[in-house]
Amino acid sequence: MDVRVDLDYARALDEADELAHYREEFVLDEPDLTYLNGNSLGRAPKRTLIRMQRALTQEWGQRLIRAWSEGWYDAPVTIGSKIAQLIGARADECIVADSTSVNFFKLVLAALRMLRARGSRRNKIVTDDLNFPSDLYILQGIGDLLEGGLRLEVVKSPDGISVPHEAIEAAIDEDTALVTLSHTAFKSGFTYDIPRVTKAAHEAGALVLWDVSHSVGALPIQLSDCRADLAVGCTYKYLNGGPGSPAFLYIRKDLQPELGNPITGWFGQRVPFEFALDYEPARDLRRFLSGTPSILSLIAIEPSVDLMLKAGIERLRAKSVAQTEYLIALWQAVLEPLGFELASPRDSERRGSHVSLAHPEGLRIDRALVERMKIVPDFRAPDNIRMGLAPLYTSYGDIHHAVMQLRTVVTERLYEKYSTEMPTVT
Amino acid sequence: MDVRVDLDYARALDEADELAHYREEFVLDEPDLTYLNGNSLGRAPKRTLIRMQRALTQEWGQRLIRAWSEGWYDAPVTIGSKIAQLIGARADECIVADSTSVNFFKLVLAALRMLRARGSRRNKIVTDDLNFPSDLYILQGIGDLLEGGLRLEVVKSPDGISVPHEAIEAAIDEDTALVTLSHTAFKSGFTYDIPRVTKAAHEAGALVLWDVSHSVGALPIQLSDCRADLAVGCTYKYLNGGPGSPAFLYIRKDLQPELGNPITGWFGQRVPFEFALDYEPARDLRRFLSGTPSILSLIAIEPSVDLMLKAGIERLRAKSVAQTEYLIALWQAVLEPLGFELASPRDSERRGSHVSLAHPEGLRIDRALVERMKIVPDFRAPDNIRMGLAPLYTSYGDIHHAVMQLRTVVTERLYEKYSTEMPTVT
Repeated sequence: MDVRVDLDYARALDEADELAHYREEFVLDEPDLTYLNGNSLGRAPKRTLIRMQRALTQEWGQRLIRAWSEGWYDAPVTIGSKIAQLIGARADECIVADSTSVNFFKLVLAALRMLRARGSRRNKIVTDDLNFPSDLYILQGIGDLLEGGLRLEVVKSPDGISVPHEAIEAAIDEDTALVTLSHTAFKSGFTYDIPRVTKAAHEAGALVLWDVSHSVGALPIQLSDCRADLAVGCTYKYLNGGPGSPAFLYIRKDLQPELGNPITGWFGQRVPFEFALDYEPARDLRRFLSGTPSILSLIAIEPSVDLMLKAGIERLRAKSVAQTEYLIALWQAVLEPLGFELASPRDSERRGSHVSLAHPEGLRIDRALVERMKIVPDFRAPDNIRMGLAPLYTSYGDIHHAVMQLRTVVTERLYEKYSTEMPTVT
Repeated sequence: MDVRVDLDYARALDEADELAHYREEFVLDEPDLTYLNGNSLGRAPKRTLIRMQRALTQEWGQRLIRAWSEGWYDAPVTIGSKIAQLIGARADECIVADSTSVNFFKLVLAALRMLRARGSRRNKIVTDDLNFPSDLYILQGIGDLLEGGLRLEVVKSPDGISVPHEAIEAAIDEDTALVTLSHTAFKSGFTYDIPRVTKAAHEAGALVLWDVSHSVGALPIQLSDCRADLAVGCTYKYLNGGPGSPAFLYIRKDLQPELGNPITGWFGQRVPFEFALDYEPARDLRRFLSGTPSILSLIAIEPSVDLMLKAGIERLRAKSVAQTEYLIALWQAVLEPLGFELASPRDSERRGSHVSLAHPEGLRIDRALVERMKIVPDFRAPDNIRMGLAPLYTSYGDIHHAVMQLRTVVTERLYEKYSTEMPTVT
């Protein structure tokens, strides 16, 4: 990429950006804020605020209990079927429920129990050390729950940035029950080739469960085409669903009848409002619902998913690649000489929509950026400044500004007055 | 109770009601609506709408990721500690998380695993057939998960209205691991004596888990005093937290270190934002968090809990008892002659804040009430019209109006034009 480091060049890129107008769809009430954290909590779409106003005053405020049969009850399915379009799934293969961690728990346990019910003695799970820790924690917890335990093989990344596909393939053997990985790694942005890993798992007779939390809404994902078995994902990152908005889960259609939700709550019952005393699972994906969905947080997801579908995931990906390439080019020209290292893959094919820059003073530089410059990336221990580029609203001007201010913070040693104590909440 | 059936009498009761002004705290934009379903979905407090506006435009809209360290991260604990005051628990014994069903799953499984780790071979769970079906479903599901299974003893109600305490006591034996009941039954409003059942369980060496979903906010509950072990509860009924708002769980303080959450997600990790690869549970009740909380639905709970604490649970209970007594007196005078039966306990000591009236034409009568009269109770199969009285906002006038309209619907046979087909969603 033949990139110039001047602001005019950034402006020209923004002018040529066919998705630029989507930025106006978001709340931008703090105009001097440069927000590079859409990979962690997406911005608030204006349409969502209007939607929430209606939900609060008309649906809850006036329709009250009657609103359940006027849209709320079906919302996990209707919103799930829209997200399905972003992950290359059929409409009836995706549903919104609970949190990513709870969904991951349900699917892993369901998959292992299904294999045991089939008579399989496979007992190994393959994952990697770039995976989001919550997924690893859940796997550890399930190991304690299951008779005979589980063998967890955590493939190590040689550089903390990526994992060679060959290393995953080598770990999959005839004892492997499940391969589960984050499609895009939360820290480095490294991205697996879903069809390739899925194929390797299937050839060895194993199931695969993808966590697409750090991909969905930024990268095209094709789950059905390669017959991926299971997936979970988050809606509050690139999907802009709002803080902690409920997650989604995907189960390939033909597996659905055989998989049983271990958390057999009433919303997964065939006819919950009959209040029968015995659990009978819903015949469709609703069986993977458990308790009553958090409606306010749930319906907040929809307006942004609609925006994404309108913008088109291929166009979003093209912009995302162009933006991460631009950021990396600026890093090379401006920041590498100042001691910043690129902690994300160079190859855009293997990279999601965030770029991590490592610096020995990363924590304090991040603090200076946030508190003094009103630039908000996020910090991931030990030294990563993680810059999330959300193609629906991040501008090239944002990226340019952030890089120039990073330079200023380091060359003027503005970070020195900030604390080196680790934050407890980010 | 010496009750008159005329409207002036209802008005006099409202005028004498020291809590009457709390009604103005709620959205009442549909003035001709008589809402008797606060036991299922509470009304929207005006303060909650203001709170949500701030959450949407300022916290999410402007502070974005920074809002996590400005209140969101601690919200499960801060709101839980307020709910603690409504259930007779210590501030650090209650936390908000997930749905009631998911919390119930976590606590039941945690309790059984704790007993097994202690070397106990107890394998029986005592419950009843008035329990909310989701709890029974979850128990059935856990039975399938555990090595050796579970023996579920479901004590039957002789009349579908109440269960004699003696029957529960007789079911508890030396094989009983856990006694779990709804404090207030969802259909009839029957209410157990928590200290009595807890004592019986403890004397037999069993644990007890109370589902207080249909009590909290309407009845005083004293969990700590009688050393109840575990509890779960719902926030969208009398607590007015909004549709599907997250639930709470209670664990007696001294049990907390020994109980492990089976869904070991990152929000229950000791320091989630360190992103360590190994799960280490939080030292306090946060260990029973799993994934990222649904913040919009979570923070909506707080304004109403504040209102409840201000009104005082003893005063709310006194009004609730007076209102259910008033409704029953009107039933006796006006509706019993028309074929309505009281399907709730007569003794207010054993009754929560809703009253069920059974009628062979219950379903169609309910439909006529809702669609023609704009009176919204709810219907529970096969024949119950369930009238929830929420002492924060239900007026004596509401109750009087509902009874008089019930009379009209039956005497003028207005229900006959409505369908007898069971609804799928209520």
